Amino acid sequence: MMDLMVFGALLVGVMAAGISGMLFQPGNWYTALRKPSWTPPPIAFPIAWTVLYLLMCVAGARVAGKSGADVALAFMAGQLAVNVLWTPVFFGLHRIRIGMGVIILLWLMVLGTLVLHWRIDWLAGLMLVPYLVWLTYAAALNLMIIRLNPFVVPIDPGQLRVGESGR
Amino acid sequence: MMDLMVFGALLVGVMAAGISGMLFQPGNWYTALRKPSWTPPPIAFPIAWTVLYLLMCVAGARVAGKSGADVALAFMAGQLAVNVLWTPVFFGLHRIRIGMGVIILLWLMVLGTLVLHWRIDWLAGLMLVPYLVWLTYAAALNLMIIRLNPFVVPIDPGQLRVGESGR
Repeated sequence: MMDLMVFGALLVGVMAAGISGMLFQPGNWYTALRKPSWTPPPIAFPIAWTVLYLLMCVAGARVAGKSGADVALAFMAGQLAVNVLWTPVFFGLHRIRIGMGVIILLWLMVLGTLVLHWRIDWLAGLMLVPYLVWLTYAAALNLMIIRLNPFVVPIDPGQLRVGESGR
Repeated sequence: MMDLMVFGALLVGVMAAGISGMLFQPGNWYTALRKPSWTPPPIAFPIAWTVLYLLMCVAGARVAGKSGADVALAFMAGQLAVNVLWTPVFFGLHRIRIGMGVIILLWLMVLGTLVLHWRIDWLAGLMLVPYLVWLTYAAALNLMIIRLNPFVVPIDPGQLRVGESGR
């Protein structure tokens, strides 16, 4: 029961992250960017993230009720908030350098979350390993995009008036 | 010690929310919107949010180590992720109707977080009351903005090319 509550609450959190990904689509802008040869096809992202988000919820639900779960879940809260931030910064504002900073902070928070979960329940920790691996890959991709596209212009949505769109 | 870890981890999470607020500025777009007479001055938002974010961290740190803290902190994680989402949706994409849906989900999650914290430590619960009050006010403002501005055009940042900005 306890575990299902934790699972459900975290599910709302990862849904927020998923909605962020659905609303801030890469689109033509991302397609036009120069990217390294090892860039995954666009379809890989929603599939990978769905799996990773569900694993996060299960990992958190597994540690619930055990000693040390509070700190582990506080780290889960911290990393999840940073996760939601990356997509709007990168795809929404085209701020690829700030995105790099966000992804580094996220990587560190996920490492902490992974270690704290592993100490309580090794299987819960193991479930977060694919997430850290994917983030390492995503961080490398973000870095390469910065190097290959030095002239990306950030968007300032606040400068548009009512009735103007960014198209 | 335990409490400080929880406080620090949540602080990273609310910082992500704060960075979201700093990057997605209201700007001319928000100024040009028709708003109700009881709209607070723009300066009220960063002040209110700084206080509310710090209270969240203290509330979470207070329940840590006590029975039921895991579920309370999982709800904290869920609501915080939804909180980070609202600003980019509203100020970034100008999607004021989706923003309304996000703020309703956020309100419900914060109510749950408040009740769960109160049961463990009434002072922790009390610290989340201003947050729920502020969200009620923000939701009313979001609703009025929808009613007063029926022709807001959403932004699609993916439709811009590299080198184009939204200005």
